[in-house]
Amino acid sequence: MKTYFDCIPCFVRQALDALRFVTDDENVQEHALREALRLIGGLDLKRTPPEIANDVHAIVRKVSGSDDPYVDAKRKQNETALAFVPELRELVQASDDPLETALRLAIAGNIVDFGFASVVDEERIRGTIERAMEYPFAADSIRRFRHAAMNAEAILYLADNAGEVVFDRLLVEQLPRGRVTVAVKGGPFLNDALMADARMAGLDEVCKVVDNGSRVPGTVLSTCSDEFRQKFEAADLIIAKGQANYETLSEMDAPLWFLLQAKCPVIADDIGVETGTMLILEPRMA
Amino acid sequence: MKTYFDCIPCFVRQALDALRFVTDDENVQEHALREALRLIGGLDLKRTPPEIANDVHAIVRKVSGSDDPYVDAKRKQNETALAFVPELRELVQASDDPLETALRLAIAGNIVDFGFASVVDEERIRGTIERAMEYPFAADSIRRFRHAAMNAEAILYLADNAGEVVFDRLLVEQLPRGRVTVAVKGGPFLNDALMADARMAGLDEVCKVVDNGSRVPGTVLSTCSDEFRQKFEAADLIIAKGQANYETLSEMDAPLWFLLQAKCPVIADDIGVETGTMLILEPRMA
Repeated sequence: MKTYFDCIPCFVRQALDALRFVTDDENVQEHALREALRLIGGLDLKRTPPEIANDVHAIVRKVSGSDDPYVDAKRKQNETALAFVPELRELVQASDDPLETALRLAIAGNIVDFGFASVVDEERIRGTIERAMEYPFAADSIRRFRHAAMNAEAILYLADNAGEVVFDRLLVEQLPRGRVTVAVKGGPFLNDALMADARMAGLDEVCKVVDNGSRVPGTVLSTCSDEFRQKFEAADLIIAKGQANYETLSEMDAPLWFLLQAKCPVIADDIGVETGTMLILEPRMA
Repeated sequence: MKTYFDCIPCFVRQALDALRFVTDDENVQEHALREALRLIGGLDLKRTPPEIANDVHAIVRKVSGSDDPYVDAKRKQNETALAFVPELRELVQASDDPLETALRLAIAGNIVDFGFASVVDEERIRGTIERAMEYPFAADSIRRFRHAAMNAEAILYLADNAGEVVFDRLLVEQLPRGRVTVAVKGGPFLNDALMADARMAGLDEVCKVVDNGSRVPGTVLSTCSDEFRQKFEAADLIIAKGQANYETLSEMDAPLWFLLQAKCPVIADDIGVETGTMLILEPRMA
């Protein structure tokens, strides 16, 4: 997805939110916000929004003096999500269709937008789970996803955020054993999941976990490791979680299934749906 | 009111909206948006938001090739508001308390945010009028406003937008005849009311109308004419309509009554109310 002009005020807003997360010093916030404005004023808008966001957040990291200012927040998000595991597992086990239930929960996991909140609203998570369980996905989409998943030899699962990876594990458990590789980020960006988060979620107990060699949000192949790119090309099914993966991969010709909620109005417009829609987006070639 | 950091993404959003209003050429939009970002990155944030907005909109005017790109929109806004006059006048005349009714309608006029819409939603205006008529303003505020208005020798009424001035006329008609001067802007800024709008509203038939010698939104005295400043200092009651007048005058020690709806969350926070609150703000010294 290209960067729309409407993304630009949002980059500024995101920079401000992130700066407030990493420092209380208003002079530092102001100086960095000015730097972000000048940077955004000069950026190449032909790139995708996550690539631009990565450049903007480099300023935030510099201010924070930490390469991973969100490490504590991510741990808390994983802990909050892990507390839901017993009831989520019960939902899957009690279901007539465990794969479909796990698929719905994986999408619910994306909807739970932890953002900068270090304390996550458990009521909101519960409401989101209930909404995903009842959501009117096209029956054909679920049927085709099942068919694709059951027949794939090499499934690459592109993870999104900390916390969300806990939900992802439930779906991975329903996919053919030994055929799934989950990819996390190669370096920290906001609350994007890293190897440590995948381990907290226990993903390494149920499948292979690799990192993609890149800290850019979403999946920008040119910034990823050769090893990851080979996995990407060899996969006959790629499950891509979240908005940033859609933004960076939507124009790619690959066996991509996007699982996400269109939380951002610009992304929703790009897809052609209402903001708030939960999506199972099938490969174009399908 | 000072410029808060939260105003900054909003300046960028406003610049984009305004650029889209004045041109369909995306290359022009992009170039001007970059210019706006660099400008905002270098601005003196000790100034009030309207002063900064004025600098940002200078870029928009340059792009538009017009000093007043909103002239048609303003005329339509006046026409739309004028169509309501018969029923508004009936409300005032049928009221037990014509001054209070006219005061409520003047605040309703501010709530009707015409913005960039060249077609205004009449249902929304009607809903706003109904809301203002029932709104639970403090009875003491209305009583004190009446007392101040009836005893003032020199009332200065700072107008806000085109369209809204039609509503203002109804309040002016209830104020002591011969004591009111309405001030409009000295030059165009968005849909701020100019002399032509005051005339369309018929304000010149019921009171003296002057311009303040400035195109900066709100009332920034240092940019106004000497003649206006003298009127401002001589007034023993100043009625200031809308957010921009609050933003630019809120810290001034003067007999200022602000009539507005706090539509912007940053302004609402500054006042200490919820977004959407309709306000009769009394002078600090009162």
